[in-house]
Amino acid sequence: MNIKQKSIKELEVLCQEIREEILRVVSKNGGHLSSTLGATEIIVAMHKVFDSKKDPFIFDVSHQSYAHKLLTDRWEEFDTLRQFGGTCGYTKPSESEHDYFVAGHSSTSISLGVGAAKAIALKGEQNSRIPVIMIGDGSMTAGMVYEAMNELGDRKYPMIIILNDNEMSIAKPIGALSRMLSSAMASPFYQKFKKHTENFVDNFGEGAHYIAKRMEESLKLITPGMLFEEMGINYIGPVDGHNLTQLIDIMQTARKLNQPVIIHAQTLKGKGYDIAEGKEEKWHGVGPFNLSNGHSSKKSSTKSATQIYTEALMHLAKNDEKIVGATAAMPSGTGLSELMEAYPTRFWDVAIAEQHAVTSMSALAKEGFKPFCTIYSTFLQRGYDQIIHDTCLMDLPVVFALDRAGIVGEDGETHQGVFDISFLRAIPNMTLFAPRDEKSFHQALGFAAEYQHPCSLRYPRGSFTETDLPESVAFELAKSQLLRSNEGNILFIGYGNGVGRAYETAEILNVKVSILDLRFVKPLDTEMLRDMASKHKKWFVFSDSSKMGGVGSAILEFLAHEKILDVAVESFEYEDEFITHGNTKLVEESLGLLPAQLAKKVEALS
Amino acid sequence: MNIKQKSIKELEVLCQEIREEILRVVSKNGGHLSSTLGATEIIVAMHKVFDSKKDPFIFDVSHQSYAHKLLTDRWEEFDTLRQFGGTCGYTKPSESEHDYFVAGHSSTSISLGVGAAKAIALKGEQNSRIPVIMIGDGSMTAGMVYEAMNELGDRKYPMIIILNDNEMSIAKPIGALSRMLSSAMASPFYQKFKKHTENFVDNFGEGAHYIAKRMEESLKLITPGMLFEEMGINYIGPVDGHNLTQLIDIMQTARKLNQPVIIHAQTLKGKGYDIAEGKEEKWHGVGPFNLSNGHSSKKSSTKSATQIYTEALMHLAKNDEKIVGATAAMPSGTGLSELMEAYPTRFWDVAIAEQHAVTSMSALAKEGFKPFCTIYSTFLQRGYDQIIHDTCLMDLPVVFALDRAGIVGEDGETHQGVFDISFLRAIPNMTLFAPRDEKSFHQALGFAAEYQHPCSLRYPRGSFTETDLPESVAFELAKSQLLRSNEGNILFIGYGNGVGRAYETAEILNVKVSILDLRFVKPLDTEMLRDMASKHKKWFVFSDSSKMGGVGSAILEFLAHEKILDVAVESFEYEDEFITHGNTKLVEESLGLLPAQLAKKVEALS
Repeated sequence: MNIKQKSIKELEVLCQEIREEILRVVSKNGGHLSSTLGATEIIVAMHKVFDSKKDPFIFDVSHQSYAHKLLTDRWEEFDTLRQFGGTCGYTKPSESEHDYFVAGHSSTSISLGVGAAKAIALKGEQNSRIPVIMIGDGSMTAGMVYEAMNELGDRKYPMIIILNDNEMSIAKPIGALSRMLSSAMASPFYQKFKKHTENFVDNFGEGAHYIAKRMEESLKLITPGMLFEEMGINYIGPVDGHNLTQLIDIMQTARKLNQPVIIHAQTLKGKGYDIAEGKEEKWHGVGPFNLSNGHSSKKSSTKSATQIYTEALMHLAKNDEKIVGATAAMPSGTGLSELMEAYPTRFWDVAIAEQHAVTSMSALAKEGFKPFCTIYSTFLQRGYDQIIHDTCLMDLPVVFALDRAGIVGEDGETHQGVFDISFLRAIPNMTLFAPRDEKSFHQALGFAAEYQHPCSLRYPRGSFTETDLPESVAFELAKSQLLRSNEGNILFIGYGNGVGRAYETAEILNVKVSILDLRFVKPLDTEMLRDMASKHKKWFVFSDSSKMGGVGSAILEFLAHEKILDVAVESFEYEDEFITHGNTKLVEESLGLLPAQLAKKVEALS
Repeated sequence: MNIKQKSIKELEVLCQEIREEILRVVSKNGGHLSSTLGATEIIVAMHKVFDSKKDPFIFDVSHQSYAHKLLTDRWEEFDTLRQFGGTCGYTKPSESEHDYFVAGHSSTSISLGVGAAKAIALKGEQNSRIPVIMIGDGSMTAGMVYEAMNELGDRKYPMIIILNDNEMSIAKPIGALSRMLSSAMASPFYQKFKKHTENFVDNFGEGAHYIAKRMEESLKLITPGMLFEEMGINYIGPVDGHNLTQLIDIMQTARKLNQPVIIHAQTLKGKGYDIAEGKEEKWHGVGPFNLSNGHSSKKSSTKSATQIYTEALMHLAKNDEKIVGATAAMPSGTGLSELMEAYPTRFWDVAIAEQHAVTSMSALAKEGFKPFCTIYSTFLQRGYDQIIHDTCLMDLPVVFALDRAGIVGEDGETHQGVFDISFLRAIPNMTLFAPRDEKSFHQALGFAAEYQHPCSLRYPRGSFTETDLPESVAFELAKSQLLRSNEGNILFIGYGNGVGRAYETAEILNVKVSILDLRFVKPLDTEMLRDMASKHKKWFVFSDSSKMGGVGSAILEFLAHEKILDVAVESFEYEDEFITHGNTKLVEESLGLLPAQLAKKVEALS
């Protein structure tokens, strides 16, 4: 699409068309809605002023990049947004040369910009290329951004950073920075300055008034961006993020500076769709919905794992005031919002700040509290060092509740929660376990609440695979539960949501198998496993986790340690590759992980 | 020691005694010197004003906490500093109730303070307890600090943060923040303000001069701390960090505010030891030295792995201008300083900012460069998510060169580089390998320079265990090297520095064994391993890494996948526990990992 030739009027029409297409497709497929609607004019202006074939266009998180996708040869494919085999919901270089980088986790953009700028400088391309970044205000809270700004402000690489400020990230704005951006005039510095000017006026009478006033006004222009200016980055703004003329003008001016510039653009989330406009968390990411009234198209009949978590934790928190918790900007996604409402002094949203979440909760544990650090499996990767260094080295009873463990469906590669067992299992003092259904989830959380060491439990996005399992017994450290015992060589070992899959696979098979709910992958139920090894010689492992270093690996380590050589282990965990986006069942089918497919594999190996 | 009753004069004498004791012990045992000398008065003032039995004293990194150790019942034991079984070089609650938390990695302190403050608020102890933090200016560059300040400035928990600013972290100051702190008056805002006042004076003549001057002066007081004030944290400073009277006064005032306060104290690194005063990196962490002339007591005769890395990379960088690299505030420790000097536009110190290092280097790889991201194994934990999300998902040829892999000796628990194989192996697209000696290191780096995917190589602190090994052949993807082939059941598999240990162990044994240098733990040399499995049935694994998910685990996964059931694998990797500090050989002995000990284990198992 040739935007360069279009007039402002034509571009305004284009924005309208983009919004209509986004609404049509997202209401059908689900997706990120309000921030992408709000970013439409910014993205159109970016394409008018810059060239995504040569200038690195870097979208932070990139959930707001739909307009960019539509503008770069993907109008046709956009209909398949987030579907298996279709257009990815995030930027993806393998999809288009206009997508510079993958993104899905927040706050990587300025670091990428700094790296790109270094490359541009080394290649001597400063006059023909410049990194152009769009980042939301929510993404400004993660530490990475600050690390990158620290180097950027020092080295002054030419770079355009468009701060898309809709005064809210996914949830309501959190933290000092957010407050500063959205209400610059109330900042402590400004207040202090105002007091100074008032004092001067008092002391020197009306003659000083004009001077003081003018200084105040000139400072007003600086104030909202002072943090950036202090860090050595030019600041322009705030500007109306829906005013194409202004945006284009400012981007052109910023380009000429040949320095790092932050353009602070204020936008309205959901802009152009009345029902979503200005609404907070609700319209950030949505499932399919009816465009005319905004109602959700399909309701899930089964309870989600997140809902069970919330219910179980509410129950515990009611009876034990030592229970506290944190989410990193996902109050609703993790189900912690209900807790924050019921116990506002004990549950915190600490913003996109997993490192800080882990370490601050560790201090609460040291003080005798019982923190539930509730983070998606994929985002816990951000707090890895802190789990080792601040929680486990101190052997503190922090509970890591990992939502979205396993395949997460439409969000895809960047969000799959598959590595947690591999990276957590190696940490001394850490205990790992998982519930398999609603009742066991309550029991697992009850165990966690009493446990006096670091521990982590994982559960899937959406609902558990199978809910009609044998009744769960109370969780005891390193105790598995044998769900079905049969003669014969075959033992199915399930972990977490894998238990349901093991169960469903067993239902399909002609041979009878024994089924063990492992429950604890660390420490293992060695007694039970020894007993099983004496009875069954073919073991199959079912778990929604990476095979390398995963549940199967733990079992192999056990067998090697016990010098048990006559048991063959086959793990149906994920192979060593990134897993694409799409409906979870379709993705699992593509990996050969549906029960019918697994049953065939078992038969072939038996 | 009762500091509370002492006069300033007496405290000054005490500071002198503390310095003498630190110099005596560090010159004998090695340790962190210059920052701990510089922090003496601050720590004495902290103990005068606050109470470490009830106020959480939180030392960031805690390498500067020696004075605190001496003041809290550890004067006698201090003589054993950093020795096996002796006083830890960092704070350690198991050592004293006055040590609130472990620390060894940077920038965790404000998060810990926020967590402690939340606990204090919940317990209603605000009037009797307050977190007291000491953090160096170098530690202010890591993102965690910013995440914590963002919440702190918003929620305003009472807290004292003493910013120990010696205008340099380990290396010279890096980044915008550092520059701002050390040279506040040159800040862009201040300059802008100055221009404004000049304009006013020009426009309104001398009458306005007095007012403008006074405003400028009052702003001067605010300027250096504006970043903090902007974030909602009170700022006091800069103050002389060696003036006890001033420090005590200010801490008392700050306590009364009942709000978050940053006290910006300026100190001289190495204060009190002429030879070290004001010196940069050299006197940060030292080995034993002669007090009278500052000369190192012992020189190592063998080349360190770091030196080999530098030489090999210098050679490569000379011939290929696409080779670039980054260190996160460890230019000398990682050996990158020589590269930074020789190629100042291609090698960067990005400050303590591992997340930013990984992601910015990934962008350089995308642009066709070949980045060598050189980070200690233990610190790479900070960039874990970025390795998955920004390097490996994009399948970019970033090389992660992991120095200090394995047991690091005197630094101990917080610094052991034992988890990297476990957490990196699970990442798709990642290749893992390791050199065993000088020649193989050059070859490994040559391989890395040409390889077109993410890869990581690891090497030990100090020198390789054994340097008299059979000649190394060129590195080829997934190719091992069989060093010794013998009839018989036993195969030793070494990885990296483990090869030398396997070799030394074999020398002691009476039976003949075969020895394989595995080289690649991912992907494995499946052909060679299959062949070995047909010949040898007892395998022993030697590697300086965590057993869970480590090299042995990779081999077990291979055997399970191949359905090879008749091979027993015993791994001599590290068990599931944190490893203490001390001389590496003594630590290894305590773990039963010396060749003589291993030989006995092999004999018992053969």
